[in-house]
Amino acid sequence: MHISELDTPVAVVDLDVMERNLRRAAEYMRAHGVTLWPHTKTHKCPEIARRQIELGAGGICVAKLGEAEVMADAGIEEIFIAYPLVGEVKLRRLMALCERAHIRVALDSEEVARGISRAASAAGHTVGVVVEADTGMRRCGLPIGPELVNLCRLVIDLPGLDFIGPMVYQGHLKGTAEERVRRIPDENARLEHLYETLTAAGITWRQVTGGSTPTLYQTHLLKGITEARPGTYVFNDRNTVGVEACTLEDTALHVLATVVSTAVPGQMIVDAGSKTLTSDRYGAGDGKGHGILLEDPGVVISWMSEEHGMADLSGATRKWRIGDRVTIVPNHVCPLVNLHDELVLHRGGEVVGSWKVAGRGRVR
Amino acid sequence: MHISELDTPVAVVDLDVMERNLRRAAEYMRAHGVTLWPHTKTHKCPEIARRQIELGAGGICVAKLGEAEVMADAGIEEIFIAYPLVGEVKLRRLMALCERAHIRVALDSEEVARGISRAASAAGHTVGVVVEADTGMRRCGLPIGPELVNLCRLVIDLPGLDFIGPMVYQGHLKGTAEERVRRIPDENARLEHLYETLTAAGITWRQVTGGSTPTLYQTHLLKGITEARPGTYVFNDRNTVGVEACTLEDTALHVLATVVSTAVPGQMIVDAGSKTLTSDRYGAGDGKGHGILLEDPGVVISWMSEEHGMADLSGATRKWRIGDRVTIVPNHVCPLVNLHDELVLHRGGEVVGSWKVAGRGRVR
Repeated sequence: MHISELDTPVAVVDLDVMERNLRRAAEYMRAHGVTLWPHTKTHKCPEIARRQIELGAGGICVAKLGEAEVMADAGIEEIFIAYPLVGEVKLRRLMALCERAHIRVALDSEEVARGISRAASAAGHTVGVVVEADTGMRRCGLPIGPELVNLCRLVIDLPGLDFIGPMVYQGHLKGTAEERVRRIPDENARLEHLYETLTAAGITWRQVTGGSTPTLYQTHLLKGITEARPGTYVFNDRNTVGVEACTLEDTALHVLATVVSTAVPGQMIVDAGSKTLTSDRYGAGDGKGHGILLEDPGVVISWMSEEHGMADLSGATRKWRIGDRVTIVPNHVCPLVNLHDELVLHRGGEVVGSWKVAGRGRVR
Repeated sequence: MHISELDTPVAVVDLDVMERNLRRAAEYMRAHGVTLWPHTKTHKCPEIARRQIELGAGGICVAKLGEAEVMADAGIEEIFIAYPLVGEVKLRRLMALCERAHIRVALDSEEVARGISRAASAAGHTVGVVVEADTGMRRCGLPIGPELVNLCRLVIDLPGLDFIGPMVYQGHLKGTAEERVRRIPDENARLEHLYETLTAAGITWRQVTGGSTPTLYQTHLLKGITEARPGTYVFNDRNTVGVEACTLEDTALHVLATVVSTAVPGQMIVDAGSKTLTSDRYGAGDGKGHGILLEDPGVVISWMSEEHGMADLSGATRKWRIGDRVTIVPNHVCPLVNLHDELVLHRGGEVVGSWKVAGRGRVR
């Protein structure tokens, strides 16, 4: 079956492009001696996680325990939960996971470190730990300073924990490719400050985990990063194109939709709204719109309601009619995939299978 | 079990508040002689749809065929698909639905009218049709004028279709309660123009379907509306409070989350981000943030990533610590419910059951 025969809206993956994205990142990482720990929040599909490991990934990264459980169910054995785990229910689930996979966790507080240590010692497990430092994102992570040093010391001392090293995230390195490169010296100054602070306190480490999809091919410029956790690179999206971290030809996931109304002049409506595309905004250029048409990139989904995508036709190069099919390059694939139960796979437009989004909705 | 023992993040429904919301709307509609056709896109739960019908709804409204199929599976017999149905796959599914429910559809084009007529005549079914007119939302709906008249005439003439009347949507009546009331005379002028245009063309109708949640309790002020399709009123949300269509006490759905990091000064992180809350923006007041805390309403979720909700503590009235639980009033419940597999039900904090979100992800 050709993808043009699929009922819409539907999320489709161009396997040739996806595999090229995966190989390119794996080769880059190998060339630069960095270990890839891809973040599977983007695809939530064990089939892709296994492929990433076949291509040389050290393991996979997830945000939530539920995602880790799905990946462990599929036989993935090296899992990094890059999220602070809080509460007795989660500690019990974490210990159950330790029975069947090698688990690492990230944390940025004494409370979380003590909780995991207590659970791990009681269960006779050892949990790998990275301690998150903030180099400018201001999300998780302690500022570089005495509190961070004390937390690293605590993790080194507490039973049941194996201190691996610091964790950083380069999500704050925004802008175009050139702007990101221009910001790297400042980031490196912060990273050096981090390493000097830890070294001065007598703390040694085995790995430094960092990176992001926009900075993926700049990882070798980031001082001391030995492991990288990009997620979006598997599919890419309009945001990744917008920040010049890939081209439109590197986008592997699209939403096929159908024109359902042309009643309002200057606009057409496609059957994909925020429940199909998410309402995540465009983080580059003029910041406007929710996706563009691959067939007619001047046509922007300018506003949405839940099931309606309103396309502004002022930049159209052809006449669009009810029943026409469109291929949408969405703003942000990660929350989009999380809306769908399956991804339909194709090569050159021929459907070759589908994957269940096994990790969909695993927010706990 | 008390809801404070649930693992987080989790969407919980306060049944007492939900039932009060449902009863209040049903009583209002009854008092004003308007038939409620609640839009089930908000809850996607057949259990709630059945309750709405018990309380006097004429039927339910859905946007997508998949939602209609879920509701028909649950025994709902009066279903209005308020969305243009395009393509042979959807027409086949529509005919299968007609075997087990009374179906109405909305449309705004000759293409859609002819497609449904062809399918319905071939299958020996009659499909109720409303023709959508645009009174200012500029989403679906033909402008009031000759094209609209011609489409109504076509629907009246085509076999297999039963013309019910015009459809409007008051989504463009925004602002505070007072501002909405101030805009009603203009909306009524447009509605009168619609009725006069149809009447002058010799077109008669049985019903006029309209309304929205913000205008729910102003439906009696809207000229000629005989059926109303509010959705959000079942749960309400921060947006509904923001436009003064309810109070915080009328919000029935909340997200319970846990504080997982306080590493960055002035901020705390809860374990609910855009994959739990959606990234739908706040459509009232200063337009900022993604939710507020019921326990401490000056605390706003000021930014999010997929699994992190960053709460700005500048308006906090208490000290928050890692492990504390928070109750989030989300911006927009409709896409939020669509992210979750189930809703946990409680009365006064005691868990009394759960509903599967049976219509989740049914975007086709």
